[in-house]
Amino acid sequence: MSTQGSSGELRVGMVGYAFMGAAHSQAWRTVNRVFDLPARATMVAVCGRDGAKVAEAASRLGWAEAVTDWRELIARDDIDVIDVCTPGDSHAEIAIAALEAGKHVLCEKPLANTVDEARAMVAAAVKARALGVRSACGFNYRRVPAVTLMRNLIADGRLGAIRHVRAVYLQDWITDPNFPLVWRLQKDKAGSGALGDIGAHIIDLTQFVTGQQITGVTGITETFIKERPLPEASSGLSASAGAATGEVTVDDAAVFVARLSGGGLATYEATRFATGRKNGLKVEINGELGSLVFDLERLNELEYYDATKPAAEQGFSRILVTEAEHPYVAAWWPPGHILGYEHSFTHEMRDFIEAVATGADPTPSFEDALQVQLVLDAVEKSDASWVSVLA
Amino acid sequence: MSTQGSSGELRVGMVGYAFMGAAHSQAWRTVNRVFDLPARATMVAVCGRDGAKVAEAASRLGWAEAVTDWRELIARDDIDVIDVCTPGDSHAEIAIAALEAGKHVLCEKPLANTVDEARAMVAAAVKARALGVRSACGFNYRRVPAVTLMRNLIADGRLGAIRHVRAVYLQDWITDPNFPLVWRLQKDKAGSGALGDIGAHIIDLTQFVTGQQITGVTGITETFIKERPLPEASSGLSASAGAATGEVTVDDAAVFVARLSGGGLATYEATRFATGRKNGLKVEINGELGSLVFDLERLNELEYYDATKPAAEQGFSRILVTEAEHPYVAAWWPPGHILGYEHSFTHEMRDFIEAVATGADPTPSFEDALQVQLVLDAVEKSDASWVSVLA
Amino acid sequence: MSTQGSSGELRVGMVGYAFMGAAHSQAWRTVNRVFDLPARATMVAVCGRDGAKVAEAASRLGWAEAVTDWRELIARDDIDVIDVCTPGDSHAEIAIAALEAGKHVLCEKPLANTVDEARAMVAAAVKARALGVRSACGFNYRRVPAVTLMRNLIADGRLGAIRHVRAVYLQDWITDPNFPLVWRLQKDKAGSGALGDIGAHIIDLTQFVTGQQITGVTGITETFIKERPLPEASSGLSASAGAATGEVTVDDAAVFVARLSGGGLATYEATRFATGRKNGLKVEINGELGSLVFDLERLNELEYYDATKPAAEQGFSRILVTEAEHPYVAAWWPPGHILGYEHSFTHEMRDFIEAVATGADPTPSFEDALQVQLVLDAVEKSDASWVSVLA
Amino acid sequence: MSTQGSSGELRVGMVGYAFMGAAHSQAWRTVNRVFDLPARATMVAVCGRDGAKVAEAASRLGWAEAVTDWRELIARDDIDVIDVCTPGDSHAEIAIAALEAGKHVLCEKPLANTVDEARAMVAAAVKARALGVRSACGFNYRRVPAVTLMRNLIADGRLGAIRHVRAVYLQDWITDPNFPLVWRLQKDKAGSGALGDIGAHIIDLTQFVTGQQITGVTGITETFIKERPLPEASSGLSASAGAATGEVTVDDAAVFVARLSGGGLATYEATRFATGRKNGLKVEINGELGSLVFDLERLNELEYYDATKPAAEQGFSRILVTEAEHPYVAAWWPPGHILGYEHSFTHEMRDFIEAVATGADPTPSFEDALQVQLVLDAVEKSDASWVSVLA
Repeated sequence: MSTQGSSGELRVGMVGYAFMGAAHSQAWRTVNRVFDLPARATMVAVCGRDGAKVAEAASRLGWAEAVTDWRELIARDDIDVIDVCTPGDSHAEIAIAALEAGKHVLCEKPLANTVDEARAMVAAAVKARALGVRSACGFNYRRVPAVTLMRNLIADGRLGAIRHVRAVYLQDWITDPNFPLVWRLQKDKAGSGALGDIGAHIIDLTQFVTGQQITGVTGITETFIKERPLPEASSGLSASAGAATGEVTVDDAAVFVARLSGGGLATYEATRFATGRKNGLKVEINGELGSLVFDLERLNELEYYDATKPAAEQGFSRILVTEAEHPYVAAWWPPGHILGYEHSFTHEMRDFIEAVATGADPTPSFEDALQVQLVLDAVEKSDASWVSVLA
Repeated sequence: MSTQGSSGELRVGMVGYAFMGAAHSQAWRTVNRVFDLPARATMVAVCGRDGAKVAEAASRLGWAEAVTDWRELIARDDIDVIDVCTPGDSHAEIAIAALEAGKHVLCEKPLANTVDEARAMVAAAVKARALGVRSACGFNYRRVPAVTLMRNLIADGRLGAIRHVRAVYLQDWITDPNFPLVWRLQKDKAGSGALGDIGAHIIDLTQFVTGQQITGVTGITETFIKERPLPEASSGLSASAGAATGEVTVDDAAVFVARLSGGGLATYEATRFATGRKNGLKVEINGELGSLVFDLERLNELEYYDATKPAAEQGFSRILVTEAEHPYVAAWWPPGHILGYEHSFTHEMRDFIEAVATGADPTPSFEDALQVQLVLDAVEKSDASWVSVLA
Repeated sequence: MSTQGSSGELRVGMVGYAFMGAAHSQAWRTVNRVFDLPARATMVAVCGRDGAKVAEAASRLGWAEAVTDWRELIARDDIDVIDVCTPGDSHAEIAIAALEAGKHVLCEKPLANTVDEARAMVAAAVKARALGVRSACGFNYRRVPAVTLMRNLIADGRLGAIRHVRAVYLQDWITDPNFPLVWRLQKDKAGSGALGDIGAHIIDLTQFVTGQQITGVTGITETFIKERPLPEASSGLSASAGAATGEVTVDDAAVFVARLSGGGLATYEATRFATGRKNGLKVEINGELGSLVFDLERLNELEYYDATKPAAEQGFSRILVTEAEHPYVAAWWPPGHILGYEHSFTHEMRDFIEAVATGADPTPSFEDALQVQLVLDAVEKSDASWVSVLA
Repeated sequence: MSTQGSSGELRVGMVGYAFMGAAHSQAWRTVNRVFDLPARATMVAVCGRDGAKVAEAASRLGWAEAVTDWRELIARDDIDVIDVCTPGDSHAEIAIAALEAGKHVLCEKPLANTVDEARAMVAAAVKARALGVRSACGFNYRRVPAVTLMRNLIADGRLGAIRHVRAVYLQDWITDPNFPLVWRLQKDKAGSGALGDIGAHIIDLTQFVTGQQITGVTGITETFIKERPLPEASSGLSASAGAATGEVTVDDAAVFVARLSGGGLATYEATRFATGRKNGLKVEINGELGSLVFDLERLNELEYYDATKPAAEQGFSRILVTEAEHPYVAAWWPPGHILGYEHSFTHEMRDFIEAVATGADPTPSFEDALQVQLVLDAVEKSDASWVSVLA
């Protein structure tokens, strides 16, 4: 049972204040200033283990209070929503406790570090849902206007049967072998490496836009740099290296091919070793009647190929997704005035607030996020299936 | 003499709350949450003529109070900065009064509707400056990281002598002849049309990045649609049409060629009739040693051609201007996480706050903005110089 | 009266064998192997002043004979077509003599070095035409499939009223001040510099695709490097420098704005100082209903913006102009297999052969080419019309 | 022992005159006109089963004679080179017979329809080589200047250790289920579908540019349309459909991931169902020190990311591969004048002629082509290795 604040208010407590915490804060601060919504988010408190640091973060990010124990946050009566922005190893414990305490939960992706944890979270979400307590996983890229448009066009049948999905998420932030062993490179904290961190995004995104599920995979993961210096200080995605070294326990890269529930084929690649690619999430979908292409580094654009037009006029159209007719855009600036990465979070909060305030289930659900986890798990298992090329 | 608030506070009053007012508000709300600055901006009051509307705007945009008379704003002791976001016909009156009252002034571009008004504003700014009262004109595109980088590379001598500038600002928002006669299409309100509204941006931007001035021009302006329906309601750049019509008294498009103080040639085009171009500000600079290209619709990118490299490896490099090494970027997200249009205003406020708080003159100055006005004026005068092609 | 060869044969004599001569030879060798045509071109003889060199060229380029006097070529009975590939200063003399001798003439662009010469050539062409002797000027870019498609779409009314033309032809082959004073930099040989050499191309191309004429201009030309070393040896566009220097007597760059006969505005730029641009002919046309963009460095592509589509789906479509439905393409390779620069000449020869063989006038006519010359002339005259920007 | 013609002559007989035959003919006609070579190719005879059609082809394509039995071609004394342009099912028989007869052989790709045939061809090539008889397989894309440049940069160590290869060859020519069952869709003629036809190209190309081999694969092939109308007439890649239908016995698409001998990961996709992609061969290589990207639809360009430059200036550089400093280019046109698909064949003939004339082995060898065949075979075998995603 949710402890809702005064009519039209949604009181938020956030756990974690690093990269994701900063992005979520920017969104919570902005969402009601841009969108007309049935409820207004209030930034009640942020939680972190280091009292001084979390106090500084609260002041900088706009939270009224700072606390050092997430259990305290959950116990409070003046909080309706728990926003989980911690590393994956604590998602399950916090989210389940919050749901059991009747708090709506928005949990960052990936949902959990293991399938078992994810299943437990789904169980908690199902139970809470029956009591009107809502939950969602934060796959924010679903809310990039061009991605939502992509989904809408496919849902409208504009591509016909889907034949191919090709999705990559390419970064290069650890190509330097001296980049230190931050938490994202440790299995106990992060669950997996590129696969779970950024591979999860393209799995969710492609399942979302196609409305289909991945039914089987075969692929491989690899750790190119197996030993790295231990970090001395880290912040967000950057860190400085110390003298001691440690073992990298997650993958640097993962590549796999997949079958989709609709009969199509898909290829996936997630890597932190694609030199020159900074946030290179690219997805192409080919259907019977057309194709769509999205590139996160140019997130205001969507390419659409309409094969039903006269042959001499067919071509990939670069749609600048900044028109009032496009998802989420009317609330922002005039056509051609581009949005950034952070706007996807503002849209995520917009949809979350609207759902919770109107008694609906926000998306993606924990069940949706579990499906991503199952794919990640299958990829790791598939690693043994391999045919040698022997002369 | 400025009436500064408590140490490290800069109390802002804004006049106007339409498109520019919304963009400025977003920036004032965000700037101190992202940047470490010597002063913190406080959003004291917003001013508009319609009491109900301005009250709603204050609440939505985050201003503590709403007032209906800008003179009242200027008279208050608890305001340090006047942010002028009104149409051009009131800039001179408000800005001059504010400066005379000892308020720092940030005035939207173009500085004024006429050269005479602009000269009067410069005179007021000079007088105020002697008393420690600061002023700047809001050419926000200077603060797009890629534009600042462009300027830095040129200032570092990376292009050598500048041979060519080609600059266009292409929009298509009034290609429909039934789009109504909003204030931006009326000479008494807007001063000029595409020339002053968007042409001013590319004049300032190219003078800024090259560090040179336009010394002579020849060109032409045109009004394609001379009669339009009067508007019934307008908001930002959109409006609905009524039955009565009126005369369009500004240009729809302006094209001109120019000489630069460094000996180079330049071409300029500003139009609201470039079908398919939404916010198509594109600038290319060719120098002896290299070239640079910027496109506002892809504002996170800068193309750089380095002609000092081996011939076989030369090419236009697409620099994704999202690295910590790039101007303004370190305060935001990791590499590859793109920024939007609105961030240019946050950077503008960042630089304005820093300058004012440290007793420096922010840029661009009113003098810089007058120079833009002089170019606009020369273009309008050049319209008669024309050679017929006669068989 | 033309001295036609055996039925279905068109016997060609070419004057000049440098860059254009090589390109034309490649086209004459290829055209009947790719296209089904009513006549077959025979490469009878090539003419050049240096006997040894022209003999070598004949052997290499595929001409049966080499001669050293173009008058001899014209006097022969076994030649039907004179293909003029010399520098501009000899076009008028050769072309007029050939026409008077009853030879069909294909003359490289620009038609002549002066308006007077061009008028004399038109007079000769008119007289010859009455006797069934054909003439055309070699603006080969009209025959790039994407350019022809551009014209067809405009002719079909797909853009509606034309509002804007912006055309640039950007090269960088003489940015090095030590590049020698080749014939293209000498007024007596070349007539003008960037203006006549590459500016002529964009003038013709834009008049061709829009079906309109330039009616007035204002602009400026500039010579950045006024003194250059005299060349020791040159070939095509490359040359080596000697110790002595000489005066550059043509423009390095020309920029101008223009009015079109249909009421639109246009901007033009031709330069050899656009560092990084190699063959950067780019044309954009904005109309009421859509826009088109062409880039010669990507000559297999045409961008088309169709503003009659639903707002949410509008965008610039990159049409890969390699489909059988596209002009000239069916004779070549399957879709997606791109054509090169030289194919435009093969298409030029295709159209020339077909016109001559069927008794029609090939295009562009000498009259069309004179119109280009008139524009070039007006640009040079407009150079004085200038408004200073004075503070 | 080869029956070489008069000094400096290489007399060619070609088997097959469809798509590949036309492309090869264009190259044989052109190669000695553009490149200075130690031998001149003579187009002696073309062979095809239909006497009337092959005679027409000989006349159109420039072959002196037409014959109907390839054995006759091989038996002739006046032929030095056999150029095999037939479907894959006859490669082994013709090539082996030709080699045994002492003819140099250029054989189109894929080398054969089965690994066994390919092994037999290698055995024949090895034997012939010992006698000075040369052989090569026609992977023409190695000779696109941008691809050769790619290889050279990697060979020079510019990328450092290779981490990732991602290669796709995307076409859409049979997305229409009514497109008929041409020979390329029949296993007995073509060996395999997209995998062998276009997948072979990207396997060879990536092994060539990296200098590495694929050592293991896992993937899947799929036939989306299992029944198609039988063709009534076909030419090149196009055909018309009849009323009867037949079974498609080859794959429509193949996707697989691979390990490289140098420790990197690779993804491959070959499909004829990528709507909107016409000849979409794209390859990206990520190394420790940089990255390279090639796109066959823009084959005059190479993107190069140099990670050794200062962070603020790094970016993907679009190198226009049309400079005299680039492979093969100096013989053609000035910078920026682009080459087409067909030029890759002219370069192939150039290298083949030069190798044969100087007594060297041309590349790729039959051994190189066998390696491609082994990879194709392993992909087909890997199809069973699959991990289901089960909730």
